[in-house]
Amino acid sequence: MASSNLQTQLLYPDLEAAVESGDLEALRELCDTLAAEDLAEMVERLEEPNQALFFEVVPEERVTEIFQLLEVSLQRAILNAVSNQRVVAIINEMDPDDRTALLESLPQHATRQLLSFLKPRERKLAQRLLDFPKDSIGRLMTPDFLAIKQEWTVERVLDFIRRNGEDKETLNDIYVVDDKGRLIDEIGIREFLLSPLDRETQDIMDRQFVALPADNPEEEAIQAFKKYSNRTALPVIDEEGYLLGIVTIDDILHLEEKEATEDIHKLGGVQALDESYLDSNLLSMIKKRGGWLTILFVGEMLTATAMSFFEQEISHAVVLALFIPLIISSGGNAGSQAASLVLRAIALGEVRFQDIWTVMRREIFVGLILGFLLGLIGFLRITVFSVFFHTYGNQWFLVACTVYIALIGVVAWGTLIGALFPIVLKRVGADPAASSAPFVATFIDVTGIVIYFNIAMVLLRGKLL
Amino acid sequence: MASSNLQTQLLYPDLEAAVESGDLEALRELCDTLAAEDLAEMVERLEEPNQALFFEVVPEERVTEIFQLLEVSLQRAILNAVSNQRVVAIINEMDPDDRTALLESLPQHATRQLLSFLKPRERKLAQRLLDFPKDSIGRLMTPDFLAIKQEWTVERVLDFIRRNGEDKETLNDIYVVDDKGRLIDEIGIREFLLSPLDRETQDIMDRQFVALPADNPEEEAIQAFKKYSNRTALPVIDEEGYLLGIVTIDDILHLEEKEATEDIHKLGGVQALDESYLDSNLLSMIKKRGGWLTILFVGEMLTATAMSFFEQEISHAVVLALFIPLIISSGGNAGSQAASLVLRAIALGEVRFQDIWTVMRREIFVGLILGFLLGLIGFLRITVFSVFFHTYGNQWFLVACTVYIALIGVVAWGTLIGALFPIVLKRVGADPAASSAPFVATFIDVTGIVIYFNIAMVLLRGKLL
Repeated sequence: MASSNLQTQLLYPDLEAAVESGDLEALRELCDTLAAEDLAEMVERLEEPNQALFFEVVPEERVTEIFQLLEVSLQRAILNAVSNQRVVAIINEMDPDDRTALLESLPQHATRQLLSFLKPRERKLAQRLLDFPKDSIGRLMTPDFLAIKQEWTVERVLDFIRRNGEDKETLNDIYVVDDKGRLIDEIGIREFLLSPLDRETQDIMDRQFVALPADNPEEEAIQAFKKYSNRTALPVIDEEGYLLGIVTIDDILHLEEKEATEDIHKLGGVQALDESYLDSNLLSMIKKRGGWLTILFVGEMLTATAMSFFEQEISHAVVLALFIPLIISSGGNAGSQAASLVLRAIALGEVRFQDIWTVMRREIFVGLILGFLLGLIGFLRITVFSVFFHTYGNQWFLVACTVYIALIGVVAWGTLIGALFPIVLKRVGADPAASSAPFVATFIDVTGIVIYFNIAMVLLRGKLL
Repeated sequence: MASSNLQTQLLYPDLEAAVESGDLEALRELCDTLAAEDLAEMVERLEEPNQALFFEVVPEERVTEIFQLLEVSLQRAILNAVSNQRVVAIINEMDPDDRTALLESLPQHATRQLLSFLKPRERKLAQRLLDFPKDSIGRLMTPDFLAIKQEWTVERVLDFIRRNGEDKETLNDIYVVDDKGRLIDEIGIREFLLSPLDRETQDIMDRQFVALPADNPEEEAIQAFKKYSNRTALPVIDEEGYLLGIVTIDDILHLEEKEATEDIHKLGGVQALDESYLDSNLLSMIKKRGGWLTILFVGEMLTATAMSFFEQEISHAVVLALFIPLIISSGGNAGSQAASLVLRAIALGEVRFQDIWTVMRREIFVGLILGFLLGLIGFLRITVFSVFFHTYGNQWFLVACTVYIALIGVVAWGTLIGALFPIVLKRVGADPAASSAPFVATFIDVTGIVIYFNIAMVLLRGKLL
């Protein structure tokens, strides 16, 4: 790994020079010494015109292998820039699952144009995969798998693999189908490698297999790979059990990353971006952020409304206003903490609706303790400043008590709301990640003001108010 | 998948009954029909005493396979509850990498005790793995791999696998070593399956391989699997290139999940928990949350300090106080958005330090637009309320202008800070996830107050102030 990275560093200038000068021999030599992944990484660093140039001149037998490793957005840019001849070479050779990912990212007319570049057999295949619903398991699928019959001996199977395995994405799993093509078992290549050559397949079979329905959402594929964590590929079937293709684990790693990104964005109060941060255009960025921000802003306007009810109290005791940001933001922070913990626990399947009472009990307890802690710090701070600098007037002790009690209430309340929001949202069928931290914080800001002033009115009536 | 889940649902009551009544025959039958993953899932649903009971009575040949699939915290609980005889059976059979994960989660005396239950060979192995630093690649490693010599023919290799592959975690990759045991190539089983039986290994070799240094941090293993995404295992070497073991992709999927959880927790302003939400005890939960919360609280106390500088302005124009929460929280929300986008982009390697100017330009632009938008809404709201209800006094127009301009400033400022904080933290070697949303929000609260009142003093001097 380290050595491979070093190699990439050292050879990058050579590659750049070879591409710029169109030195095909030097380029071919570099391609022979480097892994496709390293070449792809180097291509990403090239300047834009050179990226297209690279794919124009790189030896044809490696072009697709390297191309497939790039991000979809870069793939699009390159297809736009190279000759039609290269486009044809690349997209006819792509793995069907990677090709689907590229095609589905394009506007409709571009998809149609690319499809027209495909050989009839490949076009039919690509079209069939695109017919599966967006974000379904079918879209992740590659139809290149090895299917065998149960009467075959181990020797015949190994022979069959030797003759037909060349263009398959993985040989780690072999699928046994009946005469009609329905899946009846999945067997790891391991079993064939470890069995005597004359044993029949049916004597190895355990008829236990896990298959993914093609029309189901892709999240199910992630869950299945996590559960059956020693599998590197899983078969995909239709409603009648016919074997349609396989999903491989490399696509799952990328999917898992994509889902975590969406959750983190939502947690920050942003609609998930479709492209990487630097690639997304500013207008769509403003839309995705402005929407939520406006909703939060309108919600937050209630703080002004809430405070206007207490305008008179503030004018009598300006000192009360000084602690408003401190108190409401502490409630908001405590709520963010609880929300992010519970949200992740829901995503991992650790917390379900029936756990709501457990969560409530835990969080009220935690919230009260945290409130006592912060309240105490607040109380001490007001006391110290009052004793030494006389900052908060004659009634500082009552003010300190008000702040103390308000912090306990607002922090415990914030904690509780932050923890329960995601659970309730999930229950009513909404996306729990949407109860993002800023959303919880806004809710707590408004209610926190009401809590604070009510406590003040009880404690300070007749003194400051 | 669907059918497998259904089966689990249907058979769960049978399993529970068989365990409770100690009906060994029924239990053995269930174990024969179900995959280990399904059995593990069912065990997780059993009540605590029954979980231990299950592992006490389940047929010995399946006990470890099922045990290994459980969360480490549940594994610990079960080892505590079953007989020593079972503990010995389980931990001697565990895969070395899973065993390391269990051992490193225990307090020292428990680790020592478990080590003493191991057979000498296994104990030496376990001890050697524990000697690697925490969170290093060595700790993820399993030393069960297949190493061959370059002069061997394909037939000899397949024969060797048939005789020695039984206890290996994966047969997907075969490692070629020199006479001293130094790694010289890694070859996918695919190559052997597709080559004529009489070909020599050295004629298949391309001498391109990726190896992970055992002492390096485990994040490097994740990155390597993402880059070389068609690999299901990668070899681990020491400084001199000797092959020590392999890391398999199933461990990486769990690691990836763990890292995403940590990021989400930090983003919410919580120190990452060591255990699942419901499993962590309340005291450690309070510690992990209280620490950050206190730091944020102390920071937020500066808002009270900042506001006390403007106490006189507030007493002259209480109306100004009404909009403080609205303005500072809008800045905080905008900052959270920017922080979560940039943070994730850094984690995915999309944004690096050299991109700081690009990010800055983008975010100032986005921040100003968002500020104009929110400011406009705020301005309209004050205007409408003033015209119809006369809520904000005679100088409402100047107040509305103050709020408008302050929102532009604070939102743009918040956006900029939120985006730059993670980049700068990363640059100085700190954890960028620590610039969690609440942290950014707190910083913006304090500075937002100063911005707001300064704008007010300019616009309202001689009118309200």
